[in-house]
Amino acid sequence: MKALGTHIVCELSGCDRSTLSDIDGVRSTLMQAAREAKATIMEVAFHRFQPQGVSGVVVLAESHISIHTWPESGYAAMDFYTCGDHTNPRLAAEYAAKAFGADSVQTTEVKRGVESAKGQYTHVVLERDEPSVGRLSA
Amino acid sequence: MKALGTHIVCELSGCDRSTLSDIDGVRSTLMQAAREAKATIMEVAFHRFQPQGVSGVVVLAESHISIHTWPESGYAAMDFYTCGDHTNPRLAAEYAAKAFGADSVQTTEVKRGVESAKGQYTHVVLERDEPSVGRLSA
Repeated sequence: MKALGTHIVCELSGCDRSTLSDIDGVRSTLMQAAREAKATIMEVAFHRFQPQGVSGVVVLAESHISIHTWPESGYAAMDFYTCGDHTNPRLAAEYAAKAFGADSVQTTEVKRGVESAKGQYTHVVLERDEPSVGRLSA
Repeated sequence: MKALGTHIVCELSGCDRSTLSDIDGVRSTLMQAAREAKATIMEVAFHRFQPQGVSGVVVLAESHISIHTWPESGYAAMDFYTCGDHTNPRLAAEYAAKAFGADSVQTTEVKRGVESAKGQYTHVVLERDEPSVGRLSA
């Protein structure tokens, strides 16, 4: 299947709560995650909520990485979306999960920009190749 | 099903090509789409590629809206992700599809932040309630 992009939809649970509140740390982690995926950072936008929580996005030459955190629950919702054969968004997801100390991770892969007919683009949700909530390997 | 957020994954085809190249117009459309969803804009980050194409994200108090455009193909990949009962990301998607002149739209809805066990969060991909590629109603 030829797709313009690969989008990893990701829920992280059991994360380190203080890490999820630290906007500078979250921003640094996402920027390093982009580098792990071999992607190129174009723009960065983050916001720290009161009393807690961080939302932010790294716009890439190859799409984006985003995060929304709920420190009080140890939970973060992330998206790792890259285009091009030179990038691997799974490497970004693995890096971020470890950096945030997640004890479980759920991902779904969506192939974006699949040309189903001339000029008509769809996406395809792939079956997960892992348990719905799987413990990270050490 | 109780979820923290609703994420609409969206492919737009047959869009107006010049509109997809205009960074100012794309930014304005995404900001208005956020307002249509009753969301609150916190940060905005957009980038114009050479020779063409725009990527950008509006970070919301309630998650984010993103776009990546391929003007040469009339194609845009968009995500509309909001949290809270006061927002409706489908209204944002409908607004953007019309603004970009899409002649067909594919969406998949993902419920994000579904607590499956204490402190364990998952997402759930919902069956589409529409054809895989459906023409927008007038």
